[in-house]
Formats: sequence, structure tokens, C-alpha cells
Amino acid sequence: MRFTSDNTATVSPEILSAIVEANAAPTTPYDGDPWSSRLSEVFSNFFGAEVEAFAVTSGTAANSLALACMTPPFGAVVCHREAHINVDECGAPEFYTGGAKLLLAEGRCAKITPESFAAVLADMRVGDVHQVQPKVLSLTQATELGCVYTPAEVAALAGAAKARGMTVHMDGARFANALAHLDCHPADITWKAGVDALSFGATKNGALAAEAVIFFNRDLAAQFPFRRKRGGHLLCKGRYISAQLLAYIETGLWRRNAERANAMAQRLAQAARGRLLYPVEANELFLNVGIEGARQLRAEGFEFYDWGAEGSGQIRLVVSWDQVEVHVEALAAALESLPV
Amino acid sequence: MRFTSDNTATVSPEILSAIVEANAAPTTPYDGDPWSSRLSEVFSNFFGAEVEAFAVTSGTAANSLALACMTPPFGAVVCHREAHINVDECGAPEFYTGGAKLLLAEGRCAKITPESFAAVLADMRVGDVHQVQPKVLSLTQATELGCVYTPAEVAALAGAAKARGMTVHMDGARFANALAHLDCHPADITWKAGVDALSFGATKNGALAAEAVIFFNRDLAAQFPFRRKRGGHLLCKGRYISAQLLAYIETGLWRRNAERANAMAQRLAQAARGRLLYPVEANELFLNVGIEGARQLRAEGFEFYDWGAEGSGQIRLVVSWDQVEVHVEALAAALESLPV
Amino acid sequence: MRFTSDNTATVSPEILSAIVEANAAPTTPYDGDPWSSRLSEVFSNFFGAEVEAFAVTSGTAANSLALACMTPPFGAVVCHREAHINVDECGAPEFYTGGAKLLLAEGRCAKITPESFAAVLADMRVGDVHQVQPKVLSLTQATELGCVYTPAEVAALAGAAKARGMTVHMDGARFANALAHLDCHPADITWKAGVDALSFGATKNGALAAEAVIFFNRDLAAQFPFRRKRGGHLLCKGRYISAQLLAYIETGLWRRNAERANAMAQRLAQAARGRLLYPVEANELFLNVGIEGARQLRAEGFEFYDWGAEGSGQIRLVVSWDQVEVHVEALAAALESLPV
Amino acid sequence: MRFTSDNTATVSPEILSAIVEANAAPTTPYDGDPWSSRLSEVFSNFFGAEVEAFAVTSGTAANSLALACMTPPFGAVVCHREAHINVDECGAPEFYTGGAKLLLAEGRCAKITPESFAAVLADMRVGDVHQVQPKVLSLTQATELGCVYTPAEVAALAGAAKARGMTVHMDGARFANALAHLDCHPADITWKAGVDALSFGATKNGALAAEAVIFFNRDLAAQFPFRRKRGGHLLCKGRYISAQLLAYIETGLWRRNAERANAMAQRLAQAARGRLLYPVEANELFLNVGIEGARQLRAEGFEFYDWGAEGSGQIRLVVSWDQVEVHVEALAAALESLPV
Repeated sequence: MRFTSDNTATVSPEILSAIVEANAAPTTPYDGDPWSSRLSEVFSNFFGAEVEAFAVTSGTAANSLALACMTPPFGAVVCHREAHINVDECGAPEFYTGGAKLLLAEGRCAKITPESFAAVLADMRVGDVHQVQPKVLSLTQATELGCVYTPAEVAALAGAAKARGMTVHMDGARFANALAHLDCHPADITWKAGVDALSFGATKNGALAAEAVIFFNRDLAAQFPFRRKRGGHLLCKGRYISAQLLAYIETGLWRRNAERANAMAQRLAQAARGRLLYPVEANELFLNVGIEGARQLRAEGFEFYDWGAEGSGQIRLVVSWDQVEVHVEALAAALESLPV
Repeated sequence: MRFTSDNTATVSPEILSAIVEANAAPTTPYDGDPWSSRLSEVFSNFFGAEVEAFAVTSGTAANSLALACMTPPFGAVVCHREAHINVDECGAPEFYTGGAKLLLAEGRCAKITPESFAAVLADMRVGDVHQVQPKVLSLTQATELGCVYTPAEVAALAGAAKARGMTVHMDGARFANALAHLDCHPADITWKAGVDALSFGATKNGALAAEAVIFFNRDLAAQFPFRRKRGGHLLCKGRYISAQLLAYIETGLWRRNAERANAMAQRLAQAARGRLLYPVEANELFLNVGIEGARQLRAEGFEFYDWGAEGSGQIRLVVSWDQVEVHVEALAAALESLPV
Repeated sequence: MRFTSDNTATVSPEILSAIVEANAAPTTPYDGDPWSSRLSEVFSNFFGAEVEAFAVTSGTAANSLALACMTPPFGAVVCHREAHINVDECGAPEFYTGGAKLLLAEGRCAKITPESFAAVLADMRVGDVHQVQPKVLSLTQATELGCVYTPAEVAALAGAAKARGMTVHMDGARFANALAHLDCHPADITWKAGVDALSFGATKNGALAAEAVIFFNRDLAAQFPFRRKRGGHLLCKGRYISAQLLAYIETGLWRRNAERANAMAQRLAQAARGRLLYPVEANELFLNVGIEGARQLRAEGFEFYDWGAEGSGQIRLVVSWDQVEVHVEALAAALESLPV
Repeated sequence: MRFTSDNTATVSPEILSAIVEANAAPTTPYDGDPWSSRLSEVFSNFFGAEVEAFAVTSGTAANSLALACMTPPFGAVVCHREAHINVDECGAPEFYTGGAKLLLAEGRCAKITPESFAAVLADMRVGDVHQVQPKVLSLTQATELGCVYTPAEVAALAGAAKARGMTVHMDGARFANALAHLDCHPADITWKAGVDALSFGATKNGALAAEAVIFFNRDLAAQFPFRRKRGGHLLCKGRYISAQLLAYIETGLWRRNAERANAMAQRLAQAARGRLLYPVEANELFLNVGIEGARQLRAEGFEFYDWGAEGSGQIRLVVSWDQVEVHVEALAAALESLPV
């Protein structure tokens, strides 16, 4: 019974169907096909604003390519210390930007705060050639610790960034989970709140391999097609990626899958109340179960990662869109029966 | 009736089946799954040698990542002037290698010759810090002009490269077509002939998006996993790419599709004899049909690209694995009925 | 008796004096000192236009940093096949630009012609993401073969570049020699002719280590200070470089040294008439003296490099600003007495 | 009366003499001249070990080029949060290494401790492709806060790095000041303590523009000449840089200047006892003088930088090799007379 990560999940039937449908006949390669050609329009409708949308196959590619369009090599990207772009992408942002630097902000739940953002910038000398220049603020929605920025929180941070002449990137590998949690319009946590570019994830939430880079600030998009090709991320048969994204949006799959995963996470959160390290706002839980508790859960057949320092007795549970309900119930029961 | 490129083709049913089968249950992400774990073994069997194999989703990624493992930034890669890495990858090799230079060799049919290779090297001063240092020879098999290096030709070039302390890369975007044409063992044009690393293409020949980087020289593979991740080319759900490659090899799909495309190309070559600019050895034809001939073929519903200088009356025809036979027959008839 | 290169030369007394004068007292570091602060003004006067000028210590740095301000990583720089940036900088332009490509034009005397420039561009597909995009034309003045572009020639090439949306760089490692030869106003072969940025060399013509990057198109200069610092080329005690450049311009040293070297080159050209491979327009000569002739000259104590293919009997002679006159006379005599 | 930085200082007469002497006659360019040819030998004698030494003109170049020889692009360099390579080089290490990451360690006096080093590494997963891999430990000697690692401290940290398969770099922009303070053999804080490569600074301590990169681990030096040229840091007339370094070492200038600056810093430290934020072990002092104290010192004609957060009343004083003694006495008096 796997609760290790949502990237262990299978592909939703809607996605497989879309791939099969895209296979009916030959078509124009790269992104000249009918599916890719509709991407920007479909995402514009989704977000209620004119956007430019591009498909790629990994979240790392989405983040790095977006950032490369937003900062010169001598620029800097402010992100949370726990951000995926800092911790889990083997330096891809540095590679794609030509060596820009990540400046690390603190904050509970892996959320940057206006104060922690200001603290990072306070150390930097604007216009001084001896230092990299802060150019981008990157927020993760939902965060690496399963928490969600409210529209007001995004707007406050983005506003502070803009006041410094910076643009705003959002890593939305779990954007659907955040959106389902907030139950707001997608515009409210993106362009209306000041986000310029979004890495819009679908893979963890039911796609095979499909992420979109969405430019709300379309001026930033001009270099994207060249940088994507140059990174080897313009696929020869691009229709099979775009078709996934269209199905994901147009069939409402994004919401169904995210709501299901979030709901099951809440079921577990309920069972584990008192052990939660952070609020559960998406599909991830961070718990203190103790070393003995972790051992016991594993003995009952549950798979998950330890978290935090060795011996801390903390664990991470991730609920996928396709998580089997009886497994969730079993885990809930197991959590409830752990000795306090 | 499309003869524009084999990247307009659909995906083979065997490949779609493999994807569906890989979707049965959750599994380990990235390349920890059972399909990815078998890649090196399956390719080792295919090539008759211990290899290290890695999956990526584009030919550009395969080529660039392989080359980045083979040359320092101050190195140089000798390739044909017409090579895809030089002409059609938007500088991806330069990006991934950190700015290594491509040195361009001449040669009919887009084939490098021992003489043209020597001519390139004659201009370079080995060990002189003022110049980039030739480190890699990159051959394209089949070439961009539809021709194929024989085992002896590969061996001669690779031997010359090794004598200069260089390693040898092969861009095999259409490796299956070349292999089907030669009807030899895959070892004969790779490791037995001195090739160190191969970009093994499957996408143009029936896969959805699947290319393998094969290291015969396994010492070169050490950095690959890091460079792949850093490039955003390690997919979260890697099984769906690896499963394509396994199906492609293990069901013999590579050969069936390549032989079919090659045979249909021969049918067209027969019809266009006298107009051929190069020998037809894979699935591409380059013809002189005259401006009027090109107009006429298009009027009959055939789609293809002009080739060469504007007004040259030269065209390119590419036959895909899924080309409809009656279209091929129709094109053959149309070619035969063109005025001489 | 060295005729190998002008980079073997000593430093002019005027330059040493300027360094000593700059040493009188502590001052603001980097380029905040009084000498550096005057650079842009002094070069603006020299060129008769508002320019931004920056000091660096090598021609490779000047060229690479300028180009990095002129092209994105997915761009291309058109230069002559013989250009220093292509042949003798170990890929520095590729390094500094983040992997932009050099596209090589042909042309006698290492001069690009409108035809050879057009031929390079004819192969490139503008706006096609599969290809690097031509962004810069780089001309070398004087060329690597000792020839000089006239104002009209520069203007014609720059005009063609601008018509394609490209900017124009000039590698002026031997700019003073070219200017002395043409005896025109420096504006005539730079901004008036369409040059956007110039690598203005002083080192080969009497400085210790001083080159200036001059931006006529000041919009291109915005990133320069950051890229220079990031490249390690902003010197801690910048005054000692700027002071060289000021002395070089303000004392007329550039002209005195260049005229002297050019005149001595003409003396040798006169002696070697009939053997010249190219017109002698600056301080370099390329001669056919035969293998035996080269041997004989060396036996008489002259040092120089062979040129062209091995056994061609071609040699290069470079006259430095500080060349001893009797050595020049001796060489002239030796050349005249060579058997025809 | 400037106490802002030792990079405001003039050039020592011994250095100017060496430059003038190197100007006697033409010689081989780049580093083929007699001065450059002696560098490795002279530094080998100085350090009592076979080293490879290379000259460059800036500390940023020295650090970045050294690091580029020590880590792949997907590697990481552990340094102190206050390290010059992190704070004051505009991302040059990231540029030269192809995007490697700096991992920041804490520690009083800008000194990394075994504990803070271990804390950084504890967060990193060795061999995990999702993360950059720690490859280098970089220590600054003397630190940015004017403190000095003892031989035992260097050895402990280097030993810990080696145990992790990392190599050790030392940023010695103020190496002479550290060495003079410790009064030990240069070997004791370098190769004997486990340092693989050293950026050996001379510019701040009396040179015009001269830093050496010293490889104790000569295997790491193989790529250096190519990377230096490619970075534009191989000077055409290299003799004028190498001659500075030879004079700096062979005349004992390094020690005379460093001892003088250190002694004057001690004089000030004595005057400011009770206000020192850190031990004074080289030529820098960090003091708490209060806002009013700072104002008063400036009113008396002393120039220096504020330090720390705005309004903290902290200042930095740097004593240069050429600091006028009466200025130092005046400052000492002023410090002593500040109200407590």
C-alpha cells in the first residue's frame, strides 16, 4: 500500500483515451498539430485571460525553462529553502538560466512570507555589479509541505516582488490540488494575484507526462520556443503531450482527481489529528508517529518516506489520485490505533 | 497524402499496448520501475555487449546529453555540415556541453569520409590552448540525406578518431532504417566498429516519444544520470518511456517498421530512377523533379518539402512506417508519369 | 630578430608613465576611480559620438563580453572562417554567450563580402525554432590576414545585417593599424558605418594589457558591467588599465605606434613585392618565399611563423610598434636577395 | 584618510620595478616568456612541494577558474555564507562551473566549523540524481571577517571533506595576511593540511593586478590552461603579470607588506578593544562604534564602510599595506577618545 509519492500513480483513463484518439492519423509534427495549436486558447479560457501556453514533459523542464525566460544569467531567483527547484532538480534552474543563483527564503510550511522575502532582499545590493540581481520570485503552490497560499498571500508576495522590479513564477506541480483546496477561480491565485508565469503540473495528478508552462505576462514568452527546442523539450510528436493537457482541462479531470486525492488526505488527517506537523491543505501529510509508530505502520504493509532528521519519527504520506480507498481506510485505522 | 517526414507518423499499436500494460498499477517513479530497470539488459542482448542504456523523449535530448558526457566545454565535435546536431537542434549540443564547438566536415550524401575528417583535423592544433580541442566524432546513421554507412566505413572513421584520442558518437535517429538496410548485426555498426555512444531512435519509427542513449563505452556513462536529471529529461513516470523501448526491441517492431518503410522507399526510388540525387538506402528520397514537376505532384495531392536552393526543383520525400500503401503506389505512378 | 607577432612587443613608455602616475595615491577601487570615470567621455570625443566604454585586459574578453551582450544563447554570430573569435579563442564566445553558434563566412583576405554574408544567411531559416537565429555580424578590422575594410565596405555589410535585424560587432584588436591605414575619422568605420559595438585593442600596439569595449549602441551596454564582473574581468585596481587607455588615446600614441608599424610593413612589402599573398594594409605580411627561402631567412636570424599548409613555403611576418629599424632593413634586404 | 578597503591601495615599488624590468625586450607572448615559465618552480619552492601555478589578474577569476577545474556542473561547492564567492562575485563561480551550486555553511567570524560543514552535508543525498553533489569545500583564508584558520582547523575541515570524496579549495585573496599572522610555513595551511588548490592573492597586498592559482593536487590542473584561455584570462603579454608574482614572492614583499598591514591593524585593535566584533587576525577590523561614533569618526576625516544592518552602528576598517602611519595613529586616537 503505497503512500510514497503521487509520482508512483498510474495514468487516468481519460488521458490514455486522449492519446489513443490523437493517434488516428498522421499530422504535423512538433507543435504544429491541432492539439498543440489549441493549447493557448484552452488555457486562456481556463484562466480567463489571454495566455501563451507550451507543453513539456517534466516539472523540472517547466520550471527551468520558465525561469530561463525570466532572469539573465547574472540574476537571482528567490525561492523557499524547501523549494523543489532548490532541493530536487539537480541544479536544472542554474543550468537553464546560464548560472543564475537561487536565494533561499525561510517560512513555516515551506511558505515564503512577506517578512522572509524582505529578509532575503535586505542582504542584496541592487545595481551593484558585485552581486547577482534578484529578478524573480518563485512560489510553490501547493508547497513541498502540502500547504497552500491563499489568493491574498500570493498577491501580497507578488506585489512586494513587483515593487522591486521582479517578476513572479509559480511552481504548480500540484496546482490542481491547491486550486481544489481553495475552491477559487484559477485566476485568483495566478494573474489576478500578480503571477507572470506558471508551471502547471498534470503528471502527478493523472497525466502520463504532461506539464504546461503558462505565460500570463506574454512578453516573457518570446524566447520560450527557442529555449524549449534547445533544451530538447520540443517533442517530435508533440500532439501526444498536448492531447493529455487538453483532456486534463476540458474533461474536468484536473478537478476530479485533485478533489479525490485531497479528500482522502483529509480522511487521513482526521485520523492523525494531533500528529500533524503542518496543516493538510493538499494531498500530502507530514506526521510525527515516532520511530516505533513508523515501524509498526510499515509492518502493516504501508509504504512511505521518513521525513526530517534521522530518528525524528516523522513521516510523509502522499495520497495519489488513484489511491485505493480501502488502503486509505486501512491506513486511517492504523493511524488511529497507534499508541499516543 | 503526406510524405513530409516520418515524424508526422502515428504510434504503432504495439507501443500503445505497452503503455497501457505499464499502467496496470502504481510503481516506483523515475527509472526505478521494472521496465526502466530492464533497459540496459535488453539493449545489452540486442547489441551483444554489456551496455548502459537510458531513456529520453527526444532525439535532440539524446544527442546533446550523450555529447555532454563525451567532451569538456573547451572540446569540439566533428560532424557533417548537414548533421541534425548542427542544423536542426537550435544549438542544443552547445547548450548541453557548456559551449563546445561543432567542426563541420564535408562529404557526399551527408557522409563524412576519411578524407573530409582528416581535412577538418588538419586545421586544428592539438594541445594549443587557443583552440577548442577535437574530442568527439559524431556520425549520423542513416544520414540526413538517406544514406547509410557500411560497417567498414564506420570502422574506418572511428579508427581515425581513436587514433586522435577522440571518442565516437552515432546519431541513430533512423538507426533501425539503417540496420534494416544493411541487414547486419547491430554490433557491426556500433561497438565492433568503434562507436562509444549511440542515440538510438524509436520515435520516428513507431514509438510515441522514446529514444535511448546507449553507452558501449560504459566509462562515459557515469555523468549521464545527473546530466539527464539536470536537463529535465528524467521523467517522473519513466516507465511509460522505457516500456515503449522494450516493446520496440522485444517484439521486433523496430525491424518490421523499418523494413516496411525502406521497402516503400525503394518502390518510389524505382519509380523515380533517373531523378535521384542520392542513393536511397533508408526511408528518404531526394529527387530532382523540376519546378513544374513539384507543382504537378502537389496538385495531385502529395505533400512534401522542397529541397536545396529555391527554384532548384529538388524535393524530399520521406516514407513513414505507417505510410498507406495506396498512397505510395499513387505517388510512384505520379513520379513515373512526370515528363522527363 | 622577431617578426612572429605584435604580442611579443614591449610596452610603450607613455603607457608605463601613465601607470606610474596612476600610482600616486590610493583611490576608489574597481572602476570608480578618476581614470575609469573618464573613459566614456574620452572615447566619446575620440569617436565623435556618445559612447559607453569599458576596460578589460584581453582581446578575447573584449570580444566575448561584447558578443554576450548582443546575442541570446540561441542566437548566432556570423564571422569570417579565419576570424580570431572562431580560430583562436578556445570557444570563449560560445562560453560567454551561453552557447551561441558562430556561422562562418568565406572571403579573400579574411574579409567577409556582401555575397559571402548573404550565402551564410541563405542557409538559415529565420524564426524557425529548430535553428539558432543569426543575431550578430562580427567583422575584424584589420583582418587576420592584414587587410582593411573601407568605410564603404563596412557600411554595406552592416546595412545588410541591419536589414536582417542583426547588430554589428567589430573586432578591433588592430583597429589602430586599420585606422592609420585608412587615414579616416574613427567614426567612418564604426558608428557612421553601422557598427554597434567595438573591441578596441591597445595591447598589441603598445599597451601592457588594455582593451576597451565601446558601445555606440548604448542600449546594448546595460548588461555589460554585470557580465564583466561575472567573467572576472572587473579589476580590483581598475585605474591601472583605464590609465593605459587614456594615455593611448590622449597622447596620440595609438596613431604614432600604428603608423610606425604600418610604415615598416610597407617597407617590407616593397622588398617582397611579387611574393605577397594579400595586400599589405596594416602591420602583417603574408608571403610566398618557398621552403628554401624560409630556411634561408631563418638561417639569417629572422623569426616568424610558417603559414598555410605544411610545405607551402608561405610565411607570416608581423611588424610591431617597437620593431628595431635595422632589423626591418635587414629583413628587407634579405627578402630582396631571395632567389626568385 | 581611507580605511575602506585594501583594494584602494597603490602598487608597491618592487612591483612597478618588476614590470619595468620585464619591459626590456620583446619576448614570447602568453605564458611562454621567461617570467611565466618560472612561476611553477618559484611557487614550488615557496610551498615546499611540486605545484602547478598559473597567473590571472583578478581574485574572481582565480576562484572561479579553480572551482571550474574541481566540480562538474552538477556538483556543489560548500562555502561560508559570507564567502566572497557567494556574496561578491556576481555569480562568477556559477558561470565558470557551468551552473554548480554553492551550499552555504554558517560559523562565527565567517569560519566554517566541522559542525557547520557537517550540517550542510547532512541535508544532501549522495548519489541521488535529484540533487547536486557536493564536490568541493572552499575556505577563505583570511576570512571575510578578518579571521584566520589555524593549520589544525584547515586540516580538520579538509579531512572531513576528503572523507566525503570532496576536494578542497582555498580562497587566499588575503593569504599573505593570514600567513603573516600565523607565522607558519605556507605548507602548513595548504597542502600539508589537505588543500588541493589555492587562489593566491597579491593584488590587495601590493601588486598591480596579479593572482596565482596554485594546484597542489596537480591532477586538477589539466583543464586549467584551456579554461583560462576560454575565459579570456590568458593575457597576450603575460610576462607583466608573472613578473609581479615573482617579485612578490622572491623579494619577500608578500611578508613585508602583510606584516605591516597586520601590525597597524593590531594598533587599531588595541585602541578599539571593547568594541571588536571579531578577533583581529589579519588587516581588517569590525567594530561597534555606535551611530554617533561613526558620524564622529567621519567628521574627523576617516573613510570606512558601515557594516551589518542599517543603524547597527557597526563599521569595518581595512588597513592597507601602504596605509600612512600618521593616519593610523590618528584613527587610533580617535577610537580611543570615542565615548564608551
